[in-house]
This record gives sequence, C-alpha cells and structure tokens, in this order.
Amino acid sequence: MSPQSNDPAGWQPPAKNRRILLASRPSGEPSPENFRLVETEIPEPGPGQMLLRTIYLSLDPYMRGRMNAGPSYASPVEIGEVMVGQSVSEVVESDVPDYHPGDLVLAASGWQDYSLSDGAGTQKVDRSLGPISSALGLLGMPGLTAYAGLLNIGKPRPGETVVVAAAAGAVGSVVGQLAKIKGCRVVGIAGGQQKCRYVRDELGFDACLDHHQPELAERLKTACPNGIDIYFENVGGPILDAVLPLLNNFARIPVCGLIAHYNASEPPPGPDRVPLFMRAILTKRLTFRGFIVFDYASQYPEFITDMSGWLSEGRIKYREDVTDGLENAPRELIGLLKGKNFGKKVIRVNPDPQERQPV
Amino acid sequence: MSPQSNDPAGWQPPAKNRRILLASRPSGEPSPENFRLVETEIPEPGPGQMLLRTIYLSLDPYMRGRMNAGPSYASPVEIGEVMVGQSVSEVVESDVPDYHPGDLVLAASGWQDYSLSDGAGTQKVDRSLGPISSALGLLGMPGLTAYAGLLNIGKPRPGETVVVAAAAGAVGSVVGQLAKIKGCRVVGIAGGQQKCRYVRDELGFDACLDHHQPELAERLKTACPNGIDIYFENVGGPILDAVLPLLNNFARIPVCGLIAHYNASEPPPGPDRVPLFMRAILTKRLTFRGFIVFDYASQYPEFITDMSGWLSEGRIKYREDVTDGLENAPRELIGLLKGKNFGKKVIRVNPDPQERQPV
Repeated sequence: MSPQSNDPAGWQPPAKNRRILLASRPSGEPSPENFRLVETEIPEPGPGQMLLRTIYLSLDPYMRGRMNAGPSYASPVEIGEVMVGQSVSEVVESDVPDYHPGDLVLAASGWQDYSLSDGAGTQKVDRSLGPISSALGLLGMPGLTAYAGLLNIGKPRPGETVVVAAAAGAVGSVVGQLAKIKGCRVVGIAGGQQKCRYVRDELGFDACLDHHQPELAERLKTACPNGIDIYFENVGGPILDAVLPLLNNFARIPVCGLIAHYNASEPPPGPDRVPLFMRAILTKRLTFRGFIVFDYASQYPEFITDMSGWLSEGRIKYREDVTDGLENAPRELIGLLKGKNFGKKVIRVNPDPQERQPV
Repeated sequence: MSPQSNDPAGWQPPAKNRRILLASRPSGEPSPENFRLVETEIPEPGPGQMLLRTIYLSLDPYMRGRMNAGPSYASPVEIGEVMVGQSVSEVVESDVPDYHPGDLVLAASGWQDYSLSDGAGTQKVDRSLGPISSALGLLGMPGLTAYAGLLNIGKPRPGETVVVAAAAGAVGSVVGQLAKIKGCRVVGIAGGQQKCRYVRDELGFDACLDHHQPELAERLKTACPNGIDIYFENVGGPILDAVLPLLNNFARIPVCGLIAHYNASEPPPGPDRVPLFMRAILTKRLTFRGFIVFDYASQYPEFITDMSGWLSEGRIKYREDVTDGLENAPRELIGLLKGKNFGKKVIRVNPDPQERQPV
C-alpha cells in the first residue's frame, strides 16, 4: 500500500478507506506495533447517513487513555477497532437534512479516510471564523477546555499569578493568553528553549521556564514572588511537585489532564504523599477540581463568540503543528505524549477542498 | 497542688491561676510529658480589660497541629506558653464596655482558670439558645464547621449519598443530621459498636460502619449502592482509601480535618499514590476543597438561627463528653486524638454559675 499524495495539484480522492486500528494495548509508552493500518472498501452510506472524507485529524493526549482497557471517563477503544479522534471532514454524499456535498463538518470520525455519520454530534465548520483546522484546536475542544477550565474553576482575578504547564501546547497556550486578557501575571512551563521563547515573545506570557533544565522548583519560586493563585494542571508529575509549595491560600487548581502519567503502568515509589497533599488542601484551603470539556458543552456559543473575536483582533495567537499523511498518526501521537509537538498537533489526511479547487 | 473540687455545693473560686503549658513538642502521639501544669497568681486586669474565669474548655483535634513547630493555618504554640483553646468563661471583673461581672462569654482563653481579655474576639453566650457548653460545640465552631462545609462545598441535593467519617464526633454528628434534613442518604463511619448504634438509632443516619471491624471498603460499598456524592473529610487515612473508589462523577469532598494524620511524624511508605489520586480527580471530575471555619465567619448569624431552631425542634441532637478538672485536659486531648471521646469533648474547669447559685 503506497502513501497517498496530499499535493493538491495531483490529488485524487482515495479509492479505498485507509483505517488505523488499535492492534494491541500498550503497557507504558505506546509503540508503532500497537497500531495497524488496514485498507477496506469505502463504506456505503445508508438512508439518513452521510459519507465523510477526513481532511484534518486531531491528535490529543486523551487518546492514550482510550488505548487502555480500564474504565475512564469514556469507553476504551476495543482491539481491532479504529482509533478514535475528531476530524474536520468534507461531506462527500449526504442523505442527512441540511448537510450537502462539499460542506465541512466537525465529526468524531476516527483515524481513517472515510467515515459514515447520521449527523448526530457533528456540526458545521464555519470558514469565516478562522482556519478550518482551528475547529480542532483554538476554536474547538482544546480551546473550550482552556476557556471553561480557567474561567469556571480558575476564576482569575486581576493581579493574581497563574501558572500553566505545557504552555506551548494546544490548551496551555490558550490558558495563558486568556489569563493575560484577565489581567493576571502568567508564568508558563514548557519543554525546551525554543518553546519558551515562543511562549514569552509571541504569546506574551510574563515568564516561561524550561522544565528540561535543572532546579525547576527554585526557578519557579523566583518567577512567582507572590506565590501562585491558579495552577492549570494538564501535566502532573514533577511540575505539580514544584507548584504545590508555592500555592497561596485559596488557590484553585483546575485539573484537565495529566500527560506525565498517561504512559505510567504502575504508581511511582514511595513515600505515599497523599497525606501531605491532603494537608496542603486543608491548611491552604485549596480547591482541586477535575473537569472534562464536555461538562461545559453548554458554554460553546459564548466561547466561540469570545474566542473568534479575540483571534480576529490578534489578542489570541495560535500555532499548529501539521503533519501530512494518515500513516504518520501513530508516530505523531507517540511523539505528542513526549512533548515533541510544538503547537496543536493535527494530521492532514487529505487536502482542504479549497486548496484543490482554486477559486 | 491539689485538684480543685467542682462540686457546686462546696465550690470556692480558685485562689490561684492553674495553667497548662506546652512543655515540649511531641514527635508523633503526644504524651503527658509534653504538658506542664503550673500555678501562678490570678492576673490583674488593666484599663479596658476584663478578668475571665473559665467554665468549660473545649478540646478539639486542631490543637494537635498547634503543638508542632511547622507553619499551618495558625501560629504554633510556643514552648512554655499556655495551650490554646476556646472556652465559655464568666466575667469576674470588667473594664470593657457592655461586659459585666456574671456575663458569660465565648473567649480564646486557653487552658487555664483565669485569663484577661480586652473584648476583641469574644462574644456573649446566650443561655436561651441551648446549654452554655454548646457554644463550644453544636452552636459554636464545630457546628459552624459542619454547617458551612456541608452547605457551601458539599452542596447536598435530595437523594444523594453522603458519607461522614468520625460520625459520632462534634462535627461529623452535625454533618450527618444536616444531610438528613437536606434529604440525603447518610452513611456514618465511627469507631466501635456503641458509637455506631448511637449514630444510627439516635442521630438517624441510614447506616453506620465500625472502622474497628475488618473489610471497611467492602462494607462501605454495600452501604452505598449508588456510590458516594459527598464525602465530608475530617479523618484521612484508610477511610479516604475506602471512599475514593466509590465516589461518583462530580462528587464533592469538603476537607476540614485529617485527624488520622495529626500524629504522623513521617509520610507512610509507598507507592506514592498522588498520581492515582489526581487521576481520580480528573476522570471523576471530583472537587476537593479545604476549608477552615473562620473562612465562613460571616455565615455565623444565619447558622445560629438555623441551628438553634433545629435544636429546639428536636431535629438536631447533640451529645457531649464532659470531663471535670483542668488537670485532665492533657489526658483527654491524647484520648481525643485516638477517638476515645464520645461526642463533643469539653473540660469542666469550674462550675456553671447557675449551678452554684440556685435560682
């Protein structure tokens, strides 16, 4: 099977459906063997269905959780099933009212060229709001995650100090910029000097610390002379350890991800710090609250109004890390879990119709 | 030095001031040697001061924390200083406006017969609301702790399941009864069959589990067939371990105390379960929030109206565990930290004026 060309000039719609399946469950870090690429016939839409062709596939940290058998906030992917994922897709054929060939939709199509949908859970993508791929990032799930978690749980007040881990990532970059809009001092943490420069110089954070360098705890203390009022937790592990002693009374910790733990197959060695953790919660009156973006789905309309406005005014900047070719999705997810991406990770599975059909 | 008689008939006001000082800091469980009883002259109130005689001294778990050197939400007691504590005291002499000899006041007088006050932080005790000692319990700090934590953080809804540790204690007993008033299913956990019978039969909890018996986790699961929506945390340790897997999505955990950890001098052995703990917060969207009763001082007026009303209507029941004699306070605090008390622990330091002066 040969990789398909995404060159818009020579592009032909794929004649088969390439699908990436979960071949086996990883123990610890996933490897390419946990995935299998198969080719099947293009599915036939039945009555009330539409056929979608994937343009951009989103890769997100939560996907690691779906590869496990255990219960989480969503069902696991079964062995031999197509990997789950959101996409921006093009309607190819449609028997769904209001959806027409050529429409762009946000859909849970998974890691494949073609998928069927009855329209449930899909929504149209509006090109006027931003680049179509941003429906998977800034104007999509990661953006709403940042928006809902920071505003509802973090409740930032002017002058407060906000610390954001994975500050160059799809969620963290938005959290920090939002906190700046709300008048906070914002300190990012990211992996590598290049990401840190971007976070400081392009995104406008007050400081950014490279967690690849030693003595993170000391540097964080220096960067947060008034302590920390909000820690947006999407990493866990050593970064939480550095943050915990600096939290102020009444600090809020929205917990939206724990990427540092996703590949862990067993708990780290002792001592058991749960008692110390609980003691910090008690004596500092901390609020730890977990959330999932779907909990705030009802805030989507106000989010999209605010965020697309900030985007068009240049108050929020946005970076994507695009890789061509569905076949590269496993490698790119593995890299994402190690922080190798720089910006929102998306796979361009097929070219944007607008690039194929010059206007 | 001979213990003084609290027999109202033969009672004479103490001619000296007995004081219990912190003699040394405990490592782990406190022992009698950490305290020292001394006798001094009765202090002379200066201008703008009043002299108070202690009637009831409150013993509370937080006192263990004050015996440590480390920072907490309040300053530690210094070596050689009188142990801190709230009391219901009688005004003996007064140069403070509105306070007159014979008035009863709630004061931070510490473990001693006599203390001075300028009126700051004191308030009068109103006999019409309930027994005067209840100003240290149901109608005081423990009652407000239960009320504020359950209503503001727990936010109980009818039909939800609430689990309360230390269910026979000063705070837990009130939390459970309040949750019943709010229409919840309430499961208590207490140490011993006698306490459990009291919690079920007198306080009206739906169930009560004895944590001295084996297989707490299994029994808790059986007692909570619909999972747990609110866990009022005032214990920590193995009870939290049993609760964690049963928490429902969006469960709330007000953290008001961790008595199981107060005597710990080092963290327990591994593995480190903080990652598992954070994972539960994330996937179940839990809210852990620490609080201290003083954070809710502004709710005192509505609390006192509600609680004294429920008390007079018989909807809230209240039990005290009274020990006579200031000299017994160290032994009783040591016992309290092991769960030996049965109800709100108070020391009767001197008799109630009303008992001394038959009306």
